[in-house]
Amino acid sequence: MTRYKVTLEYDGTNLIGWQENRQGPSVQSLMKDAIEKFSASRPDVVAAGRTDAGVHATAMVAHFDLFGSEPDADTVMRALNFYLSDKPVSVLKCEVASNDFNARFDCVARHYKYIVLNRRAPVVLQKNRVYWVPRPLNIDAMKSAAQKLLGNHDFTSFRASECQAKSPIKTLDKIEITQSGDEIIFEFSARSFLHHMVRNIVGTLIEIGLGKPYDIDAIFAAHDRSAAGPTAPAAGLYFIRADYDSNDD
Amino acid sequence: MTRYKVTLEYDGTNLIGWQENRQGPSVQSLMKDAIEKFSASRPDVVAAGRTDAGVHATAMVAHFDLFGSEPDADTVMRALNFYLSDKPVSVLKCEVASNDFNARFDCVARHYKYIVLNRRAPVVLQKNRVYWVPRPLNIDAMKSAAQKLLGNHDFTSFRASECQAKSPIKTLDKIEITQSGDEIIFEFSARSFLHHMVRNIVGTLIEIGLGKPYDIDAIFAAHDRSAAGPTAPAAGLYFIRADYDSNDD
Repeated sequence: MTRYKVTLEYDGTNLIGWQENRQGPSVQSLMKDAIEKFSASRPDVVAAGRTDAGVHATAMVAHFDLFGSEPDADTVMRALNFYLSDKPVSVLKCEVASNDFNARFDCVARHYKYIVLNRRAPVVLQKNRVYWVPRPLNIDAMKSAAQKLLGNHDFTSFRASECQAKSPIKTLDKIEITQSGDEIIFEFSARSFLHHMVRNIVGTLIEIGLGKPYDIDAIFAAHDRSAAGPTAPAAGLYFIRADYDSNDD
Repeated sequence: MTRYKVTLEYDGTNLIGWQENRQGPSVQSLMKDAIEKFSASRPDVVAAGRTDAGVHATAMVAHFDLFGSEPDADTVMRALNFYLSDKPVSVLKCEVASNDFNARFDCVARHYKYIVLNRRAPVVLQKNRVYWVPRPLNIDAMKSAAQKLLGNHDFTSFRASECQAKSPIKTLDKIEITQSGDEIIFEFSARSFLHHMVRNIVGTLIEIGLGKPYDIDAIFAAHDRSAAGPTAPAAGLYFIRADYDSNDD
């Protein structure tokens, strides 16, 4: 048995998300289809993060196993990209991993970015890649609210109702807001996130940027999803990195 | 009569280019359609550059006139973006210009960028936005060849056969190549360009980057399109700025 670790870019626009199910193409189903075409097996593909429909990745990490015919990593990368051509998934990197490497459970930090296009003119070149907010945003207000989200909190108010995580307690290690031209870029790092946590935080920070009277301390204290702002659209969200202890690499 | 100066972003992927004709949607025809919807007139729309099919713009400048009902610039911008919604054209800026301002003939400098994605993995998130070159490129060789293109030359060898310009003599004021991650970004500035000139230069520089024995001096001396490299694809090209003397602004 050989375990392969792959790093993937994908455009989530027309996908139902990471997870395979019967409702449409997912990153996982496209990967399994491609693996099946060259290996005649259909192993499970396990990712660091199970992103939702419409969410993108610049560097998602996943693993899968092949038995019997076990090509070298470079051959696997070329075969996958060949069978993925014209699909919205691309293999940036492929390595042979140790047999106990697990892309999901060994991941010690997950990193996301969220891009808001803040200008009056509608989005054209970055369609499905950003969230367009036409009204001016108070970045300073957003930055100071963001500081209160850092660290260990009960994120119940920022958690989707369908979230399956056992505990709502998470530690947000990084939240950074920068401007680049018309773009406002949010960066997030944590060991793990609750379902919709990043999009619910961004949605709330945008409300604050628009001058709405949201208070982060009060939102945390409410332990109630309705106390926070709306869920920001999937199109602006990117999974950008997964970290592993160096012995897994 | 009021003359309006507009700055446009567009995604050229599904357009036949700037110029209106009967074969499909163009930036010009979409602009005229939108103007017609709120002004009941269909004035000509004149641009700084008549880009080809598939070429994008982050800031194309154009002008048009309205007679009779002449709304203020902000109203025109909102009306245009309203009627352009779901079209691949967006109005970033609208100003009232002097009656003798001409977006084409008054333009003193045109600026383009060209983006190459240089990595083995196929392009996904930047589909239709870059030219994917999977083989490694020698950037230093490309940079030193680029220096020879600067200045005043007879660009016959870099000119499309259908080019209508009277003279093949142009002055290339800027050609700059920078790397940003997997991207190689070419920037060009000149008062004006010949048809396909930027794409033919990029196509030639890429051949040089791949190690092909193209020599810029010899290409110039040949006065023959076949002496230079192939035309790089439209998808990587962006019109990024048009300059005017300050009294036109």
